[in-house]
Amino acid sequence: MKKVAVIMGSDSDFPVMKNAVKTLKELGIPVEAHVLSAHRTPKEAGEFAASARENGFGVIIAAAGKAAHLAGVLAGHTTLPVIGVPMKASVLDGMDALLATVQMPKGVPVATVAIDGADNAALLAAQILAVSEPELARKLESEKKAMTEQVLAKDLALQEQVAAL
Amino acid sequence: MKKVAVIMGSDSDFPVMKNAVKTLKELGIPVEAHVLSAHRTPKEAGEFAASARENGFGVIIAAAGKAAHLAGVLAGHTTLPVIGVPMKASVLDGMDALLATVQMPKGVPVATVAIDGADNAALLAAQILAVSEPELARKLESEKKAMTEQVLAKDLALQEQVAAL
Amino acid sequence: MKKVAVIMGSDSDFPVMKNAVKTLKELGIPVEAHVLSAHRTPKEAGEFAASARENGFGVIIAAAGKAAHLAGVLAGHTTLPVIGVPMKASVLDGMDALLATVQMPKGVPVATVAIDGADNAALLAAQILAVSEPELARKLESEKKAMTEQVLAKDLALQEQVAAL
Amino acid sequence: MKKVAVIMGSDSDFPVMKNAVKTLKELGIPVEAHVLSAHRTPKEAGEFAASARENGFGVIIAAAGKAAHLAGVLAGHTTLPVIGVPMKASVLDGMDALLATVQMPKGVPVATVAIDGADNAALLAAQILAVSEPELARKLESEKKAMTEQVLAKDLALQEQVAAL
Amino acid sequence: MKKVAVIMGSDSDFPVMKNAVKTLKELGIPVEAHVLSAHRTPKEAGEFAASARENGFGVIIAAAGKAAHLAGVLAGHTTLPVIGVPMKASVLDGMDALLATVQMPKGVPVATVAIDGADNAALLAAQILAVSEPELARKLESEKKAMTEQVLAKDLALQEQVAAL
Amino acid sequence: MKKVAVIMGSDSDFPVMKNAVKTLKELGIPVEAHVLSAHRTPKEAGEFAASARENGFGVIIAAAGKAAHLAGVLAGHTTLPVIGVPMKASVLDGMDALLATVQMPKGVPVATVAIDGADNAALLAAQILAVSEPELARKLESEKKAMTEQVLAKDLALQEQVAAL
Amino acid sequence: MKKVAVIMGSDSDFPVMKNAVKTLKELGIPVEAHVLSAHRTPKEAGEFAASARENGFGVIIAAAGKAAHLAGVLAGHTTLPVIGVPMKASVLDGMDALLATVQMPKGVPVATVAIDGADNAALLAAQILAVSEPELARKLESEKKAMTEQVLAKDLALQEQVAAL
Amino acid sequence: MKKVAVIMGSDSDFPVMKNAVKTLKELGIPVEAHVLSAHRTPKEAGEFAASARENGFGVIIAAAGKAAHLAGVLAGHTTLPVIGVPMKASVLDGMDALLATVQMPKGVPVATVAIDGADNAALLAAQILAVSEPELARKLESEKKAMTEQVLAKDLALQEQVAAL
Repeated sequence: MKKVAVIMGSDSDFPVMKNAVKTLKELGIPVEAHVLSAHRTPKEAGEFAASARENGFGVIIAAAGKAAHLAGVLAGHTTLPVIGVPMKASVLDGMDALLATVQMPKGVPVATVAIDGADNAALLAAQILAVSEPELARKLESEKKAMTEQVLAKDLALQEQVAAL
Repeated sequence: MKKVAVIMGSDSDFPVMKNAVKTLKELGIPVEAHVLSAHRTPKEAGEFAASARENGFGVIIAAAGKAAHLAGVLAGHTTLPVIGVPMKASVLDGMDALLATVQMPKGVPVATVAIDGADNAALLAAQILAVSEPELARKLESEKKAMTEQVLAKDLALQEQVAAL
Repeated sequence: MKKVAVIMGSDSDFPVMKNAVKTLKELGIPVEAHVLSAHRTPKEAGEFAASARENGFGVIIAAAGKAAHLAGVLAGHTTLPVIGVPMKASVLDGMDALLATVQMPKGVPVATVAIDGADNAALLAAQILAVSEPELARKLESEKKAMTEQVLAKDLALQEQVAAL
Repeated sequence: MKKVAVIMGSDSDFPVMKNAVKTLKELGIPVEAHVLSAHRTPKEAGEFAASARENGFGVIIAAAGKAAHLAGVLAGHTTLPVIGVPMKASVLDGMDALLATVQMPKGVPVATVAIDGADNAALLAAQILAVSEPELARKLESEKKAMTEQVLAKDLALQEQVAAL
Repeated sequence: MKKVAVIMGSDSDFPVMKNAVKTLKELGIPVEAHVLSAHRTPKEAGEFAASARENGFGVIIAAAGKAAHLAGVLAGHTTLPVIGVPMKASVLDGMDALLATVQMPKGVPVATVAIDGADNAALLAAQILAVSEPELARKLESEKKAMTEQVLAKDLALQEQVAAL
Repeated sequence: MKKVAVIMGSDSDFPVMKNAVKTLKELGIPVEAHVLSAHRTPKEAGEFAASARENGFGVIIAAAGKAAHLAGVLAGHTTLPVIGVPMKASVLDGMDALLATVQMPKGVPVATVAIDGADNAALLAAQILAVSEPELARKLESEKKAMTEQVLAKDLALQEQVAAL
Repeated sequence: MKKVAVIMGSDSDFPVMKNAVKTLKELGIPVEAHVLSAHRTPKEAGEFAASARENGFGVIIAAAGKAAHLAGVLAGHTTLPVIGVPMKASVLDGMDALLATVQMPKGVPVATVAIDGADNAALLAAQILAVSEPELARKLESEKKAMTEQVLAKDLALQEQVAAL
Repeated sequence: MKKVAVIMGSDSDFPVMKNAVKTLKELGIPVEAHVLSAHRTPKEAGEFAASARENGFGVIIAAAGKAAHLAGVLAGHTTLPVIGVPMKASVLDGMDALLATVQMPKGVPVATVAIDGADNAALLAAQILAVSEPELARKLESEKKAMTEQVLAKDLALQEQVAAL
């Protein structure tokens, strides 16, 4: 299976982004994580993205906060799908990172997920790989069913709490 | 190759979304377009998404404005990657559609692109299919190079305009 | 009297939404609460709404955070009045949930109350039922008068605090 | 059947709000419209709301722009359900009117619809009356089905446009 | 001298608004404070404003949060200057209260100060009275000079801190 | 009677601000208008404000757009009440000017009115002067009554339009 | 004198940015303009910035819209001062470009000017060069005085317009 | 070398702004810090800016919160480059200070950095001085390289954390 790269603009993003790494590992997807910055290591970031396809990657996840340029800059160097995770890091609740990640110009898309949405970034990467990996697709389907059942179980559990009011 | 579905919440979205259909056709990707609403045809929308993988689709693009629930609702019925295009339709410049599309809860990602970003939605769909389609990947690489050359040509053209100031 | 349904997108909404359940019970209105998600249990959510009128419900209250699709999705399956409660859940202070709940397209209204406005959702449901329930209307009138008197009592109490400054 | 009141803060709201009046008339619901301002005719506005239930009204729709106080002020004088329509009137695209209408304090709910959502306000009023009017409920159900069919017809029509691209 | 009224929508506003009362007292301005709500005691609020001038008031200060209608409603019943203080009360950091207070329609101004700006509301009230009270004007001038000197003293104190870095 | 100064940051504000001048003239209030900029003529602006009281002014109205510093800067040089009018001038619909005008620090209030609210600025200035001018107060009261009657007349006129739908 | 580079992310920015070029030429500052994109020509953009100092540049001005990464990416490759001009290009009035330009992480500043602020970007570049160019500093001082006189002349001209009201 | 002035609107800004002073000292740049307010000490602030160039300053850094007028007011009195630091001080997360600092009118630029961006303000000041100070430029280059190496070291350190998941 193709690998997924999880790139962070700063190691302070790791407490949130480790959830992406974990989710990918649990789904049996090979993952590689790096701290690479669009501003502090632009050369290394560009080279990583430019050679990612030939190095066996299928998807790149990029997380950054504030003026979050990382996902867009990586997307400028590759035609692999790049998933952007806007981080809440700044004083503006992540709204700056969201707009800086999603509002990409024509020709260079970034697949943006929710602010601090590390889990969903991993899941989206898995969905992308699963387009050509039937086994992974089955795994995602069965996870989805489990999720449905969890909600229904919570609905049952709620009935007692409501009765007690 | 897997097909791409382009779903609109309203036929008034077509003037923007036809760019997604065109881009996909130009890349030689089979495409199917539909008007389906999360609120007005919820049953049909749900069934379309639930059976999309077995019907040969690899990616779903969903465009909607205002309280844009379409992409999220489709994503609730499938494990295919769903790309959301927030439409500017409302009085709030599309900010409502952007937040309603991107801020998805854990477990159900939507790959969100820019407001009115029909072209980029198509390109992202192509990038997703190209993970397992080397020929399409080469086409995307060559388009990317052409884009670079266009910018460099524009830079040359600019020199005359600047000299004339 | 018709029943009121209180639907939550997640059981983490219960600490806020239990106030809606309590308020309804105190007014003597039959209430039923459920955890049902527009994205994780779309089928069950749709079926609940579609059969709500024939199952004796008069109003549906739906609470959800982030890209809050729950109220809109339920409204897509019923012609009962649906009251939406945007939850503060996300990093954006509930502004995402507010816009995703209130900006519904033509044909499918959601009666939206304030962010985290569980009490007011219950009160609005009671006002709706009271249109044809004179006894309940009288109860609401007398609650309103009590509220007025509480404010006037607080005004009196304030005088001492002001004098002490 | 109970009457519906459509109250506007200014006659400049009529080009939008006449759609509410029309929708109600088409559904056979008796309607009365007024220009009444929370700031310019506060006494008349308060008296209208205070006596609305005994004057045969079941629902009040209130439309106002900018610092939109009308719906909240009417709600302060009645226990009838009050539907608020934030108008786009101001330079802020109606965001000021939306927040001023929906963020009501505990005890005085306003059922808020989308910015400029006159049609949906009328439809919500009809849904509220239909809780105790089975005939009206049937009419709303049949309108909903017609709406579904319109979307499906538009989907068919789209196929030709897509083929022509 | 004319009196200043300090009106709060809720007694929970008192911890902030007591600063307005204190500031007015320190300036020797007669002050009266009340809890009065645009929604819960609309009649009492309206009557207070309507008779304020003949009761010896020169300025009304009104503080409210969320959908802050209090200042506007009072202004609808009087031609005295009304100063609005948007309170931070809600989950939206007071932005809702600010827009609901300041965006008043033509004919009914509210003199709006900063979010939670209780001190400045009192100072503005004093400035208004001082237009025709030379003694009070002199007091304000001397307070202003003291404020300037405080800043210059802080500048001196800063030099040590800077030297210690 | 004291004079009112109407200060604009740019002569491009005059099409809006002339309404303030007109309203003041119609109320018989002496008015003086100036173009003075906090950034381009800081010395002249400061001197104007510093000597305004002794030059016979009772109120200063200041209108500016974008990073609207004019009202705050004038308020820094005087203890007269300063009314700020945020102008829509910029690309941000006047939200920048509103925040730059209203969010003044402790000690230096600006009485802010709505974006482009020239009329209300004039009316507020009149209300301030009327605190000690009974004749002007009577004029404002009678204008307020006329305004009420206009709304009631519009309500009557509306009835025909509604009947014609 | 050192040169100033004016870099645009797209040639569609030229109608606004030509004002920067003109202003610099009028001040006698050598200027070079380019179309270079952070996403479409990342290699060329990076190389330009990395060699700018040795190529005789003293300041780089970078203009881009939407998810405006250009200024930040150039700043990542140089220690020259980089001035960012957020362009209004997108549907969000340039708010996305503003946040994406100004909210830079520690270590990589971008000197951000107003949305569409081409003139001010040029002026700021001139001020930066003038720190070590006394002749240019004198020119800027004399332009500033001319600007002051223009405002005073406009104040005079206003008097006639006001008298005519 | 020219000096850098660090001006704060309030001494409560010092905990953030001392980082600017420290950074400048570490780079060997002479620095002078002051508390000066656009509203409370307008005369002193204006005089400081007007004489800054002849007093040996090359750059002015100005930090202020809420309706942050300080940077703009200083810029009105000088043609030196003025760097604005919007402070988070207020309830609006610094968005008010950002807009009040960056949206300057034509002719009076302020070089704005991120909210609370004290370090970057100092770095930008250093970059400005370094245009004509080759030694300082070399120091900045070497700091930039050290920053790159820190990120690469963090990337290495991350590998262990990832392996441990």
